[in-house]
Amino acid sequence: MRIFKDADEMQRWSMEQRISGNTIGFVPTMGYLHNGHLSLIEEARAECDLVVVSVFVNPAQFGPKEDFGSYPRDARGDLEMCEGAGVAAVFMPTLDAMYAKDASVGVNETSLSLGLCGTSRPGHFRGVCTVVAKLLNIIQPQVMVLGQKDYQQAAVLTRMIRDLNFPVELKIAPIMREPDGLAMSSRNIYLTKEQRSQALAIGAALTKAHDCFYAGESSADEIKRQMRAELQENALDIDYVEIVNGLELRPVQSVEMGNVALIAAFCGKTRLIDNCIL
Amino acid sequence: MRIFKDADEMQRWSMEQRISGNTIGFVPTMGYLHNGHLSLIEEARAECDLVVVSVFVNPAQFGPKEDFGSYPRDARGDLEMCEGAGVAAVFMPTLDAMYAKDASVGVNETSLSLGLCGTSRPGHFRGVCTVVAKLLNIIQPQVMVLGQKDYQQAAVLTRMIRDLNFPVELKIAPIMREPDGLAMSSRNIYLTKEQRSQALAIGAALTKAHDCFYAGESSADEIKRQMRAELQENALDIDYVEIVNGLELRPVQSVEMGNVALIAAFCGKTRLIDNCIL
Repeated sequence: MRIFKDADEMQRWSMEQRISGNTIGFVPTMGYLHNGHLSLIEEARAECDLVVVSVFVNPAQFGPKEDFGSYPRDARGDLEMCEGAGVAAVFMPTLDAMYAKDASVGVNETSLSLGLCGTSRPGHFRGVCTVVAKLLNIIQPQVMVLGQKDYQQAAVLTRMIRDLNFPVELKIAPIMREPDGLAMSSRNIYLTKEQRSQALAIGAALTKAHDCFYAGESSADEIKRQMRAELQENALDIDYVEIVNGLELRPVQSVEMGNVALIAAFCGKTRLIDNCIL
Repeated sequence: MRIFKDADEMQRWSMEQRISGNTIGFVPTMGYLHNGHLSLIEEARAECDLVVVSVFVNPAQFGPKEDFGSYPRDARGDLEMCEGAGVAAVFMPTLDAMYAKDASVGVNETSLSLGLCGTSRPGHFRGVCTVVAKLLNIIQPQVMVLGQKDYQQAAVLTRMIRDLNFPVELKIAPIMREPDGLAMSSRNIYLTKEQRSQALAIGAALTKAHDCFYAGESSADEIKRQMRAELQENALDIDYVEIVNGLELRPVQSVEMGNVALIAAFCGKTRLIDNCIL
């Protein structure tokens, strides 16, 4: 397995692979890999000759009061996991290798990125779009695999790929959950034992939305009321509870199949997100 | 010579060329090609196996009161000129092929694009960066050739390529001039005979800046005063007269070799730009 810290070297390697006829599947991550990431790597392996994983905690997508500094990191563990998963190359750049001191170019999405996480995390999606545009140019994959857990991110990047004509196909892999239903996330490590148990209310609220809808309820207000009740009973601090249409992420009044129920909530200081396609 | 109107077909062709080992040199244009463009095509041919020229009058880089509607167009003439110059493929998309109705992603440069033309043409460089990012992803060239006449554009795109890691090398080709010194431009067609003669003051003012500097004058204020005088004597309406350092485009006080003198001026309703590296 090759490990690259320099963007130009990574790019050269990718170009050589492309010219020699190999297809590249790419999984962008912020590291501290878990089984959710492994499922993305497996999806990429099924689609392409070679898998490249990037491990980069991207400061540009964190707000000034967010957890950039404390975000969990484990380079050695990540490399072992990638090696075990048959990854061909890991791109693990330093901050300086990714951003020049006078960097002044960014990629902005101005529609899908405004609501939901975009409301509570201004600048987040600009950071995400910019770093993923860079990574796509460096790694030049045919396929990029993202997780459905970051539903809005996947929608925004789908839009970016379309609007900027990136020559890559995007695959969205299903949410991986712990046996008790908590969506896998590197941030779960932050949770105390008690919070870990509280956090189950997020998955429970989504299950409630699902069951409610398939029992015949179509009022978004009523379904969201029940979701909020579930979260509040477990003392979670709600950022948003929303039901949107799948492509434009517009809140709906009357719920239809294919709409998406989404939750962001704080469990102590830890912000968790999860969603469910109805 | 191949002609593509569809972005996906263009992209597929480019990918096939890349995989079969051909290098692509790319010249982005707004059409109405002249000898200035031809010199860019020749530069691209000298560098690469195949040359692709795009012809697209990009509405996103025109302001609401600018000349998008009247910008000169001559598709047949452009194709003939490309054919004669040994171009392998022309990308001539329709508006719909380039921008989805709900397009919401753009590329912003927030430093070099603020002054000079960016001041009088807000949004212009966002339009330029966005369309060139799209064209780079569609055409996937190893080399892109731009003209020095649009000096700020070349600087902004150099920055974009660096900051977003586009896998392309940028070449800047020298300004081509008419025998009397007027910089070649598709917009010269707008000029009446009288304006055409007035417009020579732009080149003359730059020559004055050059001669003045090499005669020992290092005060930017003094050189700019003389440049403005030249333009005003010929009744040109000055947009800006500036001397900047070559990379960051910051106005200088004390002029040094490698600084760039730039002019934008209206000749009637026609806005002309020109520059000279000192």
